[in-house]
Amino acid sequence: MDRWRVDPGTKLDLDKIDPGSTARAPGNKAKAEKATSELQDQIATLQERLWAERQQSLLVVLQAIDAGGKDGTVKHVFGHVNPQGCEVTSFKAPNEDELAHDFLWRVHSRTPAAGHIGIFNRSHYEDVLIARVHEVVPKAVWRRRYTDIKAFERTLSTAGTTVVKFFLHISKDEQARRFRARLDDPTKCWKFNVDDLKERALWDDYQRAFEDAITATTTKECPWYVVPADHKWYRNWVISSVLV
Amino acid sequence: MDRWRVDPGTKLDLDKIDPGSTARAPGNKAKAEKATSELQDQIATLQERLWAERQQSLLVVLQAIDAGGKDGTVKHVFGHVNPQGCEVTSFKAPNEDELAHDFLWRVHSRTPAAGHIGIFNRSHYEDVLIARVHEVVPKAVWRRRYTDIKAFERTLSTAGTTVVKFFLHISKDEQARRFRARLDDPTKCWKFNVDDLKERALWDDYQRAFEDAITATTTKECPWYVVPADHKWYRNWVISSVLV
Repeated sequence: MDRWRVDPGTKLDLDKIDPGSTARAPGNKAKAEKATSELQDQIATLQERLWAERQQSLLVVLQAIDAGGKDGTVKHVFGHVNPQGCEVTSFKAPNEDELAHDFLWRVHSRTPAAGHIGIFNRSHYEDVLIARVHEVVPKAVWRRRYTDIKAFERTLSTAGTTVVKFFLHISKDEQARRFRARLDDPTKCWKFNVDDLKERALWDDYQRAFEDAITATTTKECPWYVVPADHKWYRNWVISSVLV
Repeated sequence: MDRWRVDPGTKLDLDKIDPGSTARAPGNKAKAEKATSELQDQIATLQERLWAERQQSLLVVLQAIDAGGKDGTVKHVFGHVNPQGCEVTSFKAPNEDELAHDFLWRVHSRTPAAGHIGIFNRSHYEDVLIARVHEVVPKAVWRRRYTDIKAFERTLSTAGTTVVKFFLHISKDEQARRFRARLDDPTKCWKFNVDDLKERALWDDYQRAFEDAITATTTKECPWYVVPADHKWYRNWVISSVLV
């Protein structure tokens, strides 16, 4: 899985990574789904050992453009874990209390305890993504946050938390297909938000923001993976493999 | 008050600072107490402006050897502030939940919101003091925490929190006098803890631990002050002056 890891010192160029890639997949979709199911079982077994030992923890950070597949990843990769030892936090727009503190305050409070898996569906990275694209704060502020983020994750890491970060990389066409699918399917249309179209218009700005944030904050201890995610079955297989 | 600030790049030597100093005090004890009372009023007025503006916050960290005067400082320096905008957190031995997270987790959750004053009676510094003296963690771990602490305080500072740290510097003789006073006074004896004597036996270890921690973590943005604290009235006057 090393091919999808962003190593420190390399400048990420998302245009050079094919969102439709299925490189080294274990066969076709059906075979990959079978392999993923086995990996999910392994994750569940490993979770029990993590829980029993209570010395380490795992923090999984999921970031993507809208419709990138964050919710689906949580459902499919962690579908077999015991929810007693796994907390998912979905970070929305910060509330008044959160805005009254530094940007890491709300995420720090949700980091996993020893023995637990924590999943961040969006995270502190929004503060260098949305905050940058919508100019919520000036450049000097969001740039400085890269350093804050690295130090924060290093603190977690030295305390025994393995931090793994995934960027779900989809193409602009795939996003359009997923939006349309949401609108066409009565069981999915609740997921469609008209604001998503406004964000789509800022596609290129977001891609640049992701590239810079990932380049600046990928480290040996807390690496970023850019996961080709146009094919959901491939995305699930890659992420499960990395975690195992 | 610059004389008591520990500037970055200087190696602190506590033996060279007289805990009984009353340098530049505004006259005798009575005069200093009057001056402190006026400073307390100023602090209360400034707190109202902080509250009204809701853009910045103040974090005061108090550290000292047992009987060093932390509780007395809270009472006398912040006696006039509106408690609605001022939260004191006394950090005791970490509980199970706190131990299951990195050492900054519990303190980060208690940092002051914009418009507020936060006071830490003991703090994250215990994790490089008690933890070092009692060898709770190996040297490599507590030494690394200096870097974690600096990064954490920098995050707070860039988010608008002024971080000011005070070490209340008393002599070993003065500690003995205060322990005896606690035992002799029926209204104070509840404060005496027989474990304090065990800690007193480690006096020199603690002094070295304070010196190293203060030297390593005093910065331009988040400075340490070493306050001569054998005279309570002088200690209160110095701290009030620094804060104003």
